[in-house]
Amino acid sequence: MALIVQKFGGSSVADATCIQRVARKIVDAKRQGNEMIVVVSAMGDTTDILLDLAYSIHPNPNPRELDMLLSTGEQVTIALLAMAIDGLGEPVISFTGGMSGIITEKVHKKARIQSIQPKRILEAISTGKIVIVAGFQGVTDEGNITTLGRGGSDTTAVALAVATQADQCEIFTDVDGVFTADPRCVARAKKLETIHYDEMLEMAKLGAGVLHPRSVELAQKNKVRLVVRSSFSDNPGTLICEDNLMEKVVVRGISMDDNIARVSVTHIPDKPGVAFSLFSQLAKKHIGIDMILQNLNHEATNDLSFTVSKDDLQDAVTVSQDFLKDLNNKGSLDVKEAVAKISIIGTGITSSAEIASRLFGTLYELGINIDMISTSEIKISCIIDSVNAVRAYEKLHAVFLE
Amino acid sequence: MALIVQKFGGSSVADATCIQRVARKIVDAKRQGNEMIVVVSAMGDTTDILLDLAYSIHPNPNPRELDMLLSTGEQVTIALLAMAIDGLGEPVISFTGGMSGIITEKVHKKARIQSIQPKRILEAISTGKIVIVAGFQGVTDEGNITTLGRGGSDTTAVALAVATQADQCEIFTDVDGVFTADPRCVARAKKLETIHYDEMLEMAKLGAGVLHPRSVELAQKNKVRLVVRSSFSDNPGTLICEDNLMEKVVVRGISMDDNIARVSVTHIPDKPGVAFSLFSQLAKKHIGIDMILQNLNHEATNDLSFTVSKDDLQDAVTVSQDFLKDLNNKGSLDVKEAVAKISIIGTGITSSAEIASRLFGTLYELGINIDMISTSEIKISCIIDSVNAVRAYEKLHAVFLE
Repeated sequence: MALIVQKFGGSSVADATCIQRVARKIVDAKRQGNEMIVVVSAMGDTTDILLDLAYSIHPNPNPRELDMLLSTGEQVTIALLAMAIDGLGEPVISFTGGMSGIITEKVHKKARIQSIQPKRILEAISTGKIVIVAGFQGVTDEGNITTLGRGGSDTTAVALAVATQADQCEIFTDVDGVFTADPRCVARAKKLETIHYDEMLEMAKLGAGVLHPRSVELAQKNKVRLVVRSSFSDNPGTLICEDNLMEKVVVRGISMDDNIARVSVTHIPDKPGVAFSLFSQLAKKHIGIDMILQNLNHEATNDLSFTVSKDDLQDAVTVSQDFLKDLNNKGSLDVKEAVAKISIIGTGITSSAEIASRLFGTLYELGINIDMISTSEIKISCIIDSVNAVRAYEKLHAVFLE
Repeated sequence: MALIVQKFGGSSVADATCIQRVARKIVDAKRQGNEMIVVVSAMGDTTDILLDLAYSIHPNPNPRELDMLLSTGEQVTIALLAMAIDGLGEPVISFTGGMSGIITEKVHKKARIQSIQPKRILEAISTGKIVIVAGFQGVTDEGNITTLGRGGSDTTAVALAVATQADQCEIFTDVDGVFTADPRCVARAKKLETIHYDEMLEMAKLGAGVLHPRSVELAQKNKVRLVVRSSFSDNPGTLICEDNLMEKVVVRGISMDDNIARVSVTHIPDKPGVAFSLFSQLAKKHIGIDMILQNLNHEATNDLSFTVSKDDLQDAVTVSQDFLKDLNNKGSLDVKEAVAKISIIGTGITSSAEIASRLFGTLYELGINIDMISTSEIKISCIIDSVNAVRAYEKLHAVFLE
């Protein structure tokens, strides 16, 4: 008998029909002899509707009260899913984050889980019940409701798998697993059977959108067997694990992100502390930086480039302008909004010059100019004009993965 | 400085604009030097929407899960109201029923409050915060969420007023207070300045719909100063208290309820235990009985009549048919669906034959036949054909109250 944690996202529980389908899936897994803990998100766009309500009342809602509000979304889902499972004749009980013993920091809107005391969950499991848990939420040790922020429900599922020593954690989504590229952009993208945590982490960070990096990191740290599968089919999905392909250089996937913009401050003085000064100001404004590049320029000045998400561009520009003002306007600002990042991911990829050379060669053949290049152990990313993004995406997939 | 508990119902917090208005009312009261505890219901028809969702998933939803679901309605309101008050610059905190220390029986959908430990509420009050509490809900001592059933939010407010020894409990509604009749039916109905608990209790039970009897009983038992006022005006409302008009016979109000039906079993054997047998069966089916009348008939048989709400009529008929079958079909069933109950309410009313005689005389003059009559210390009720109800209602108001 295996203990399985399953997680169903908002689109899998968007309405009563979806909830009934998810209930049948869970009951099937139970009747195959498994013990089941199920984590669910808020239904469909409930969270957005609640946020709209909040912002119609206050431009900057109190974070504690926002968490009090948003946590109702998952609470609705757990109750409805429990009713549906009850209707299929299986014993079931639903728990909020607090009832599940999920204790978080005293921070609202993006609390981190501090500990889980799964006493009630394990008791219910031991009496044969399916346990339904509200994802994305916990309580402080004072009993105030918190939410976990982005990727919260995935994180709840993995954290519960760790706390209950579950055999497997299955993340259900609206696609069949992790693909070599986004199937909505690249028709010939293929599903992967397995992927290494590190590769998945890069895929996740680079906009593959299936799993939040936070949950992948937590799974890796605790060696949780993590599976991504579809709530609309019975396909086996993609297993994320410490696979044994480490030594072989393989391109595992290609990702593309066109929700970014590139900011460069050029001809700035080449002296210590300049980069620190810029990035500490960006950090103060909570602007997330993705790629950073610095090249030594002629005349002993530097050029510093970085990418940000388009949402943060306006703030990043303001910070950069202030930064240049502080340098007595030595240097200038160059912003490019219409860029995309295309990345090739695979373990050991940068140790193989051949892959980099084929990547650059392919883009050259397409007549696409590369704006920035950045590499890590397992990926190579290029910034290109967004107008060329889909063309490059498809061609690179054909070259490396077909 | 007075400690005031205010309660706002669903129509007072139906949307963002309503919530902003309620927030201003609360802040005004605070700035006049009061300490404020505010109880709110779910917004508008939220509870009905949630119920529809539940019934679309299961014809008979699990009661624990139904409470888990419904309790989110009030939780949404407390968060939004707290945001609105925060926006007006007053310190505020919201609490669910559980956080407020409201402990109930281990019964779902209609739990009774067992105790309140208002520690967190009083702490927040002592630091100058306005406290917003989710009405209609509590938790069991095991930490499961329960709801209080009909009149739940009013009951939460009165119970909190008792537990915190508040100076006054104000129930805000969409009318200006308690009227001599329903202003939607009787245009000349007048607002009462004060009314005795007993009279209010009869008004509430007889369909005046402003306050649930459960909360009035609780207020009376604990001598809570209870005020009914409008959330759409600043009028002082109606004070419900142990007023000192006890000795004077006055008609305080007239109420009408046309959501009832009359069931009679006639010519049944006149022997001990017959009435018990019928009403115990009705009780088992949770059918609420209102008036009961028994007259001795010719030939030593009895006629038993009672009224039920129209919702319960079908069940009541089934029980009555089974009852007659058990009597070997000695007796017959007579059902009248189109009836209304009209009641005159006032302390000491039945000690004055003059009022009864004027009531019957007025109906006689209108050519309206009386089907049943029932009296208590402070009311006289008549069952009449519902087609005559509004005409009788207006005329009796004119005779007794204009």
